[in-house]
Amino acid sequence: MATLEEYRAAGQALRRRVFGAPQSGAKSPTQELAPDLGRISDEVLFGQVWSRPGLELPHRSMITIAALTALGREPELKAHIRGGLNVGLTREQIVEIILQLAFYAGQPAAHAGFRAAKEVFDQLDAAGR
Amino acid sequence: MATLEEYRAAGQALRRRVFGAPQSGAKSPTQELAPDLGRISDEVLFGQVWSRPGLELPHRSMITIAALTALGREPELKAHIRGGLNVGLTREQIVEIILQLAFYAGQPAAHAGFRAAKEVFDQLDAAGR
Amino acid sequence: MATLEEYRAAGQALRRRVFGAPQSGAKSPTQELAPDLGRISDEVLFGQVWSRPGLELPHRSMITIAALTALGREPELKAHIRGGLNVGLTREQIVEIILQLAFYAGQPAAHAGFRAAKEVFDQLDAAGR
Amino acid sequence: MATLEEYRAAGQALRRRVFGAPQSGAKSPTQELAPDLGRISDEVLFGQVWSRPGLELPHRSMITIAALTALGREPELKAHIRGGLNVGLTREQIVEIILQLAFYAGQPAAHAGFRAAKEVFDQLDAAGR
Amino acid sequence: MATLEEYRAAGQALRRRVFGAPQSGAKSPTQELAPDLGRISDEVLFGQVWSRPGLELPHRSMITIAALTALGREPELKAHIRGGLNVGLTREQIVEIILQLAFYAGQPAAHAGFRAAKEVFDQLDAAGR
Amino acid sequence: MATLEEYRAAGQALRRRVFGAPQSGAKSPTQELAPDLGRISDEVLFGQVWSRPGLELPHRSMITIAALTALGREPELKAHIRGGLNVGLTREQIVEIILQLAFYAGQPAAHAGFRAAKEVFDQLDAAGR
Repeated sequence: MATLEEYRAAGQALRRRVFGAPQSGAKSPTQELAPDLGRISDEVLFGQVWSRPGLELPHRSMITIAALTALGREPELKAHIRGGLNVGLTREQIVEIILQLAFYAGQPAAHAGFRAAKEVFDQLDAAGR
Repeated sequence: MATLEEYRAAGQALRRRVFGAPQSGAKSPTQELAPDLGRISDEVLFGQVWSRPGLELPHRSMITIAALTALGREPELKAHIRGGLNVGLTREQIVEIILQLAFYAGQPAAHAGFRAAKEVFDQLDAAGR
Repeated sequence: MATLEEYRAAGQALRRRVFGAPQSGAKSPTQELAPDLGRISDEVLFGQVWSRPGLELPHRSMITIAALTALGREPELKAHIRGGLNVGLTREQIVEIILQLAFYAGQPAAHAGFRAAKEVFDQLDAAGR
Repeated sequence: MATLEEYRAAGQALRRRVFGAPQSGAKSPTQELAPDLGRISDEVLFGQVWSRPGLELPHRSMITIAALTALGREPELKAHIRGGLNVGLTREQIVEIILQLAFYAGQPAAHAGFRAAKEVFDQLDAAGR
Repeated sequence: MATLEEYRAAGQALRRRVFGAPQSGAKSPTQELAPDLGRISDEVLFGQVWSRPGLELPHRSMITIAALTALGREPELKAHIRGGLNVGLTREQIVEIILQLAFYAGQPAAHAGFRAAKEVFDQLDAAGR
Repeated sequence: MATLEEYRAAGQALRRRVFGAPQSGAKSPTQELAPDLGRISDEVLFGQVWSRPGLELPHRSMITIAALTALGREPELKAHIRGGLNVGLTREQIVEIILQLAFYAGQPAAHAGFRAAKEVFDQLDAAGR
């Protein structure tokens, strides 16, 4: 078993692979008010869950996008749509996930999901990526 | 574009592939009280959504399991855990989906998911499959 | 404006009209552990909300059934399906409400709603009503 | 049974009756990213569900407003508050629906519902309708 | 037992203690569209629930903050974070509540909670309080 | 900063204080299917969150009961009602938490909470505690 420091280093590396390098100076409210939750998230969620071998990275991204669409958590959904593209999902796959969720979480959940996706896709298009 | 009858036939075939042949005589409350919803589900959800090429069948199963775990819909979750195994997911993948959801939908959602999974796995073990 | 006692009496009368006469001796966990919430429910929810003239009684029943289906609160949904029948909704209307909710709250919400409705309808059939 | 084309035409007509004529050129994110879901929504949700005879149109609007208030889906709630007024609900009825939901979905759900309703009512007042 | 008028007076006093004096002229959409719900909230929620002796005021604030974080009702959460500080909770306690909720309602619920808390804390800091 | 082993030992001790000694041989579905989540829960949720000094243990129990009532997670709610009594909450305080939640998460959430509480209280009474 790894040490906490090893988990944290692995988690931070994986988080950067999913979300890209953090912008210097920018702190989220969670990081500012509860830095320990950010640390725990690195050590545990990324260091010990996302990094597990039993499910491939793009599939972890898929299920997270599905859950966030169902739960109606748009800011996190946008971050994970970007993250999904970073780990190899296509825009088409992301659209399909949200479309299917219309039938399991209701059409309003899908509409909110597509609003989030369009915002992310438009930002990427504007940035020429 | 296909006709409704073609969508329905394709949907029924896909539904059987996911959930197995329906038991003769057994009707769900939905099928009994709202047979049109069952028909629509064949024609649309299975005939026009699950059958779309943009996302592979096992991945559609993954995201459905994730959404049902997040939403706390246990009877449907059990059906889709069985369905996921039928379309090629491994038990390990299903466990990983539920485990990761603990961090996005909360630990109680994961506990409920594992209760559902264990019930399905035990039934399959008892049936020697 | 009425007094609390008048609201309570009106609320109790309306509650009986919706749910029927309470069975003697039977107390719900809420009534046993928090009798004040039962009293408040009579004085306010039934005495000052369900009794308001701006929305007819059967329509109040419709929207409550819709909300409970969306929220996945099955025990209360069953009580309000019985109540809806008592205030003049037909079984067909109740089925239509749940069916439509499939598209706004997701198909699993409708499946749970139909399970609840079938249980109520079967009990009424068995009682010859 | 109708053909898909007939359902779609009937659904589009009913959707226009509820929501008014679509503004030319304006596409929602769902229509842009998942046009098939828009098509399915016409063919099925409006063409085969909202159009069913078992529940009157204003009642379908009532239960949708109730469900969206309970689920906290404000953008869709605003659209359906406008739609409800278009199919004959009064502002008073819409206010009563949201008020009653305070007791079934919690006061915060009602506060969000009233924020949505006020925004719609104010826009209609400003437009002189 | 008190009269409605006594409950209302007690409720209004307690509401002011939690939320401060209402700004003259400012009405919430709920107060404007459904003044009776505002009255009921004074008479019942504050006059008969928050005022009960069985749970201390700061503890009532704690559980409300926890519930609103879990339910994702940010506008009301912000109001109750301010209210919690008014009745004696510390910023640290509020941060701890939200942090712990990450594990029961999911990390996205906590992120939304911290966004709300930071907004309130920043406003208070800007006002020099 | 502590090591993982120290966190785990502290977490296990705190978990025992809240929930009592685990029954030998009895494993929950989570512990059986995802033992790592149980380990993480000891190391993190109990070892690094419940053990933090910023919020007293009974208050952590209060907010967890509130969140589980709002989320409708009854099996976990029952466990935490027992846990709350173990760390010093009174039955009256638990009843007050659930009663207040009726107004923030809706009366059905409170009814479910009181069903859970009554079941726990009855079991404790039957066991003479």
